[in-house]
Amino acid sequence: MNFNIHPISNTELKEKLTHKINHKTKPIGALGTLEEIALQIGMIQNTEEPVLKNPTIIVFAGDHGIAKKGEVNPYPQEVTAQMVYNFLNEGAAINVFCKQNNIALKIVDAGVHHDFDNIKGLINAKIAFGTQNYQEAPAMTHKQCTTAIQKGADLVTTTYHRGCNSIGFGEMGIGNTSSASLLMAYFTGTPIKECVGAGTGLDTQAIKTKQHILADVYAKYTVSSPIEALATFGGFEIAMITGAILKAAELKMTIVIDGFIVTAALLAAQAIAPNTIDYCIFAHTSGEQGHQKILHFLRKKPLLDMGLRLGEGTGAAIAYPLLVSAVDFLNTMASFESAGVSTNE
Amino acid sequence: MNFNIHPISNTELKEKLTHKINHKTKPIGALGTLEEIALQIGMIQNTEEPVLKNPTIIVFAGDHGIAKKGEVNPYPQEVTAQMVYNFLNEGAAINVFCKQNNIALKIVDAGVHHDFDNIKGLINAKIAFGTQNYQEAPAMTHKQCTTAIQKGADLVTTTYHRGCNSIGFGEMGIGNTSSASLLMAYFTGTPIKECVGAGTGLDTQAIKTKQHILADVYAKYTVSSPIEALATFGGFEIAMITGAILKAAELKMTIVIDGFIVTAALLAAQAIAPNTIDYCIFAHTSGEQGHQKILHFLRKKPLLDMGLRLGEGTGAAIAYPLLVSAVDFLNTMASFESAGVSTNE
Repeated sequence: MNFNIHPISNTELKEKLTHKINHKTKPIGALGTLEEIALQIGMIQNTEEPVLKNPTIIVFAGDHGIAKKGEVNPYPQEVTAQMVYNFLNEGAAINVFCKQNNIALKIVDAGVHHDFDNIKGLINAKIAFGTQNYQEAPAMTHKQCTTAIQKGADLVTTTYHRGCNSIGFGEMGIGNTSSASLLMAYFTGTPIKECVGAGTGLDTQAIKTKQHILADVYAKYTVSSPIEALATFGGFEIAMITGAILKAAELKMTIVIDGFIVTAALLAAQAIAPNTIDYCIFAHTSGEQGHQKILHFLRKKPLLDMGLRLGEGTGAAIAYPLLVSAVDFLNTMASFESAGVSTNE
Repeated sequence: MNFNIHPISNTELKEKLTHKINHKTKPIGALGTLEEIALQIGMIQNTEEPVLKNPTIIVFAGDHGIAKKGEVNPYPQEVTAQMVYNFLNEGAAINVFCKQNNIALKIVDAGVHHDFDNIKGLINAKIAFGTQNYQEAPAMTHKQCTTAIQKGADLVTTTYHRGCNSIGFGEMGIGNTSSASLLMAYFTGTPIKECVGAGTGLDTQAIKTKQHILADVYAKYTVSSPIEALATFGGFEIAMITGAILKAAELKMTIVIDGFIVTAALLAAQAIAPNTIDYCIFAHTSGEQGHQKILHFLRKKPLLDMGLRLGEGTGAAIAYPLLVSAVDFLNTMASFESAGVSTNE
């Protein structure tokens, strides 16, 4: 469990990229955030001419012990498996948006409470048939957790070797906003009640119940490391995303961070390897209120703020064209000199 | 100068579209603003299965009498013509983003202070070689203004008859943030000084000078109609965009509204025909501070907030994929029923 993630610190390249951006035929800074993204991707790829290759989103699906009871989740646990079939049949939102934006989509069974019988198109990385209910025992064993991290990392390595250098992650798991809330509380120090939101659509009373339940869970454990936090409060899909993020950063890939769950997985990755965040571009601010607080904690302003709260990687998928815009302007826009346009100097 | 713009008010269709959106395999409302956009485009096209056809951005270029002196603009007036050549050579940001997103791009000489000698690729709609300096006289005559509005409308009609039903507008005109500030003051009632910003990059002292100059200009005239406001304070490119927006709304096209200048043109259009805004989707919040105030006045929250302040229609171009996302999920996502996914009921 060792990831070697380099800091991004080539100051000479940073100056060159900044010069290149500032000499495009536009006022300085007039492309706003796109300029920051262009600079970041150039720095990640260590070049003045970055290219986004074979963009891919990997969706990890897993079930949560707590969701069996239905106290924290308005949808029944079976929906996780049903949605996996929906992904495979190309009927879900993430299918639509990946197809639109030419993003390859991979679906992974990280630990769904269902036997998919080696169905075509589904990557089998199942750790178990759902986690334990952390109301009773840690969600997974230490070994299960490190196995999940490693499997997530390995899937990214495979994707990388097929020519992908820009990647996003999504998740499906009924009950996983509860895991994300617990992880957020642990990694950010935010009081657990402030980490809890509506999930897939709880009403005010049900949110209070969820807060109460999760406060009890949070108080039940004494956790002393990032891995232990993931094992205690996480889900198989979340642990795999943590491993996937870590490996993608190690491989100097551009990582598009989706919503609440993926950002919670990033918190764990960042606690394991603090340079990880340098490789991350934040796609969107979720409608789930906890996500906004994590972003504030990380001091990040995502590209989109459209009230999405679906998961699956949908925010990453719809934000992806903005990364293409950033790279394309950097590579193909004319400079004042090449276009013969007067400057303001 | 008569535009017949229908209100959007098919309540039966609205219910059908809402039902369709709510029964997709996602929690109710989980696609946030994309759901609002899908509903709006369906309502505009009066169908449950809207299609975005041949998206087009028309960029109108024009010069401004006041810019000759260089008191309100850091870039010299010649940059307008130079940037037109840059557009024709496909070197500008708007070229890059239109190419990326498969948007057709048309460049129009609305009244640049330069003889382009019927160069290939440029649509000649020149009213004059730049407007008058409104420090001395109204920017244009009533006749010039109505001619510009009509030319803008005619260009949209032509585009529509070539099969386009989704359109955005951009502009290039050194000095045109001054026009937009004056129009904003007139149409929103905001004190003129609060309408003035950095434009293409003025510093604090230069912004004060610009405020002072434009306050004098604003006080000099008594204006009594939207057309007179456009004629007095506008530019040829702005008046053409006003006409283009009005015609696009009349033709029930989906209109993507760009930044400060285009939104100022929309204020004029909206004053002429109040249903116009129903056909508009707001692409982005500009870094130009006046734009944020107009949006607040119109009670609109755009799709993007990325600090862009370039003009050219760039905000509309990079936001366009989000419209595609909205239409695609509406048309191709599975429903709970078709996918066999359990609901929360």
